[in-house]
Amino acid sequence: MRLPHRILGIDPGSRITGFAVIDTDGHQSARINSGCIRVGAEPWPDRLGLIFDRVSAIVAEYRPHEMAVEQLIFARDPTAALKIGQARGAVLCAGLKGGVTVHEYSPKSVKLAVVGTGGAEKSQVQHMVRVLLSLGERPAEDEADALAIALCHAHSMGIPARKRAAASWRDWRP
Amino acid sequence: MRLPHRILGIDPGSRITGFAVIDTDGHQSARINSGCIRVGAEPWPDRLGLIFDRVSAIVAEYRPHEMAVEQLIFARDPTAALKIGQARGAVLCAGLKGGVTVHEYSPKSVKLAVVGTGGAEKSQVQHMVRVLLSLGERPAEDEADALAIALCHAHSMGIPARKRAAASWRDWRP
Repeated sequence: MRLPHRILGIDPGSRITGFAVIDTDGHQSARINSGCIRVGAEPWPDRLGLIFDRVSAIVAEYRPHEMAVEQLIFARDPTAALKIGQARGAVLCAGLKGGVTVHEYSPKSVKLAVVGTGGAEKSQVQHMVRVLLSLGERPAEDEADALAIALCHAHSMGIPARKRAAASWRDWRP
Repeated sequence: MRLPHRILGIDPGSRITGFAVIDTDGHQSARINSGCIRVGAEPWPDRLGLIFDRVSAIVAEYRPHEMAVEQLIFARDPTAALKIGQARGAVLCAGLKGGVTVHEYSPKSVKLAVVGTGGAEKSQVQHMVRVLLSLGERPAEDEADALAIALCHAHSMGIPARKRAAASWRDWRP
């Protein structure tokens, strides 16, 4: 199975940033690596520097063709928005500086792409990501979100995978 | 007059980012360059890339010893917070990647340092920055904010300039 396209999915956060590298042909996808970048003990500007450095290192190591990041449209807490905004700025700059084009997807379209419904729960996303990528175990929440974003971008390149996703999340058990 | 210390002050914004390069000995300061980085027509991730690039170029050209940025603690609009947060993330990463240490000051302490009162109006800041740096004309708002942040950091290194500022803003006319 040749999967010619490499995608880096990122779920930015001020403490935990999920990342996921997948290879895809737009129909089939395989996980290459995924995990979480954790920061927190450092002074605030250094945290952003760390996120920038780690994402830059992932871009340098895996040379993704494209980067996909969730569009943030939440209207709850302005202080949280400010922090997550800065983390997102660091992530996008690291991608752009690594020569990777950046694509944005709304949270709803990410859920729609992997679960088949825009209002899916986090646990459904974790489940579907595991199913779609045949993972041995359920990924952590932020890691699952990054994998979902990468898959969403992969699906946008090929056939609408929504139907496949919608069909297979019926085995999901909360 | 030898002013051995170079400071880059930045006022990040999603459309206009003010920047200011000053030389200082902690008592006397002189403006080297200041202005505004304007973005807006580009898609959102590219705007951040532009802010990162322009700030990186300023750091490379002027080699500041330190960078000073306003701490953002506003609780109005989460969508605006998210945008300004991303711009701020791009600015801080550009500084850190350029090898410059980053210092943060609250808006109140910036106003206190240059005007002598934490509740100063924007026009007072513009006026005092002009007076303190003997500028030929009143700088634009975002530029003035960047100059004020740089001066705030300069003052934190030397004698409390607050008294001098408090004395001289008495000639301010709205």
